[in-house]
Amino acid sequence: MTAREEQRMHSPVVLGLDFGGTKIAVAVCEMTGARLGSATVQTLAERGARASLDRGIRAARTLLATAAPGRPLAAVGVATFGIPGEDGVALAPTVPGWSDLALGRELREAFPGARISMGTDVKAAAAAEVAWGALAGVDPGIYLNLGTGLAVAIVAGGTVLYGRHGASGEIGYNLRSRGDVGLSLSDRTPLEDAVSGVALLRQASAVLPRATGAVDVFERAPDDPRMARLLDDFVAELSFHLVNLAVAVDPQRIVVGGGMARSWDRMHASLRGALDAAVPFPPELVLAEFPFDAPLMGALALGTAAARDALNEGAVA
Amino acid sequence: MTAREEQRMHSPVVLGLDFGGTKIAVAVCEMTGARLGSATVQTLAERGARASLDRGIRAARTLLATAAPGRPLAAVGVATFGIPGEDGVALAPTVPGWSDLALGRELREAFPGARISMGTDVKAAAAAEVAWGALAGVDPGIYLNLGTGLAVAIVAGGTVLYGRHGASGEIGYNLRSRGDVGLSLSDRTPLEDAVSGVALLRQASAVLPRATGAVDVFERAPDDPRMARLLDDFVAELSFHLVNLAVAVDPQRIVVGGGMARSWDRMHASLRGALDAAVPFPPELVLAEFPFDAPLMGALALGTAAARDALNEGAVA
Repeated sequence: MTAREEQRMHSPVVLGLDFGGTKIAVAVCEMTGARLGSATVQTLAERGARASLDRGIRAARTLLATAAPGRPLAAVGVATFGIPGEDGVALAPTVPGWSDLALGRELREAFPGARISMGTDVKAAAAAEVAWGALAGVDPGIYLNLGTGLAVAIVAGGTVLYGRHGASGEIGYNLRSRGDVGLSLSDRTPLEDAVSGVALLRQASAVLPRATGAVDVFERAPDDPRMARLLDDFVAELSFHLVNLAVAVDPQRIVVGGGMARSWDRMHASLRGALDAAVPFPPELVLAEFPFDAPLMGALALGTAAARDALNEGAVA
Repeated sequence: MTAREEQRMHSPVVLGLDFGGTKIAVAVCEMTGARLGSATVQTLAERGARASLDRGIRAARTLLATAAPGRPLAAVGVATFGIPGEDGVALAPTVPGWSDLALGRELREAFPGARISMGTDVKAAAAAEVAWGALAGVDPGIYLNLGTGLAVAIVAGGTVLYGRHGASGEIGYNLRSRGDVGLSLSDRTPLEDAVSGVALLRQASAVLPRATGAVDVFERAPDDPRMARLLDDFVAELSFHLVNLAVAVDPQRIVVGGGMARSWDRMHASLRGALDAAVPFPPELVLAEFPFDAPLMGALALGTAAARDALNEGAVA
C-alpha cells in the first residue's frame, strides 16, 4: 500500500441521502464530490415513515461498509420531500407520518459525529443543476420538478431562493381557479393533486389499472384517445401555472427534472408553445442535466459543503 | 452668505422623474437624497408620448430653476411604466406611442452632462421601500402595485429581482385561466385588462359614467350592489394571482402600493383572508410606506446612486 493509498483509507467521506416518495437513494463520495458508490431502495411509504427512514439508514450503512470501509463519515447531506427540520418534515402531505418524524434528530443518532445538512428535494436538485448542470451561470432560472409531486425552485444570483420558511417554490399548493379563493386546503383540490405523477396515475387508473408510473400514461397516449386527453389537460394546467410563474420571474431558462422528465418528448412542444405565446420574453426550456438523480447529487452537495465547514472548524481529523 | 451656503449653491443636485399612466411627478434633491422640491403634471397620454415626455421635461426644468437655481445637475433618475431603454419603452401597451419613444436618448439630449438612470416604476417603488420603507430588512418580499396597471416586484437578499430582460413582476401579462394557454396576447384578455385601476374604471363606466378613478368605484360599493359585485370579482381575481405568487416566493411580507392603495380598507380583509386560507406560511400584508409616490422616490434613489457613481469617477465637479 502506498502512503497515498494509506492516507486515503483514513480520510473522511460524505454520505448523501435522498428521500423520495417512491424511492430512497443513497451515495457516498470523497470530500471533493467524487462518487464512491450509490444504491437505491424502495420508500414503501405505506409501511410508515419510521420504517422508510430505517430502510434508508440501513441502505446507507451497507453502502458505507462496502464503498468506504473503515473510513470516517464527515457529514450527511439529506434531500427530502417536504421541508426537513429537526423535529418534523413540514408540507409533506403525500407521504403519511413524515410531518411528525424528528428527521434531524434521528439522523444525528444514526450517524453520530457526522454533520447533518438537510434541504428539500427540489431545492437540492436545483442546487446541483446550479453547481454542475443546466442552471450553471443562468440568472434568473427556474427548476421545475415533475415527479411524484410538483414543485419548482427559483434561482437568482446563483443561489436557490429559499423563502422565509424554506417553502418557496411549493406550487403544489397553488390555487387552481378563482373559485378556490378563500377555501382552506381541505375544501379545495391543490394543484399537486391534479398535476403530478401521482395525480396522473390516479386519473388514469380506471383505464390503466396496471400502470405503475406516469410514464405508462405518456406511453399509451399515442394509441388511446382517453390517455391523450388526460395528458392534454395535464400539460395545459401545468402550462398555465408555469407561464404565470415565468411572467413573474422573467427567467433566462427553465430546467425540467424529476421522474416525469422521462416523457419530455411528449410534453416539450406544448410547454414551449405555451411559453412562446404568453411570456413577453420567452425563456429557454431544457431538460435538466441530471433529471433523475439531481436530489441525490444535491444531497451530496449539501453534505460536502457541511463537511468542508466542519473541516474548517477543526471538527474533522 | 456663509462659506457653507456659498458651497451649497454650487453643489450638484439630482432630478427624479416618474412617468405614470395618469401623472408625471418630478422632484429635485441633494446628493444625500434630501428633497428640495417636487411637482406634478398630467400625463395626458391621449395626446401622444412625445407630448407627455415634453411636458415632463418642461416641469422638471421649471422645478430645477425654482428649487435649485444655478446648481449643476449631476444625474436624472427615471421611473416609468413599461421597461425603459435607450430607444424605446418595452411592454407599455396601456400608453400608446411609448414603445417607439427613444426615452434614454431624449433625456440625454434634454439634460446634457447629467447621468441618466432608468427603471420600471414598480421596481423603482420597490427599491424605495427596500431603502427607506416597508421592505427594509424583509427577505424575501413582494411589492404589489395596484395603480393604473398591475405589476409586482420580488425582493430577495435586499435587492429587486430584475429578471433576464428587466421584465420580472409584469404579472399584468398573466394568463387568467387554463383556456388562455397557447393563445397569443391579441387573442386573450391579459390579467391587467381585468385587474387594474383602468380595468375597474372601464367595467364600472356603464353605471358610474362620471367616475375618474378606481377609488370612486370603491367608495360607491357600500351603497351599490353592482359596484360591490364588481369589486368582489376584482379582489377575488387579484387574490388568486397573489396567492399563487406568494406560494412560489414564500415571502416574509407583501407590501401594497399604487393609487388603488387609497382603498386599502376595502381590500385588506379579503386579501388577508385569501392568503391565510391558502398559503402554507401566510406572509404579512401591509400598506406601503410611500403608497403614492414610491416610484418618484425610487427615481430619486436611482438618480442619487448614479450621481454618486459619477462623482466617484470624477465626472462631476
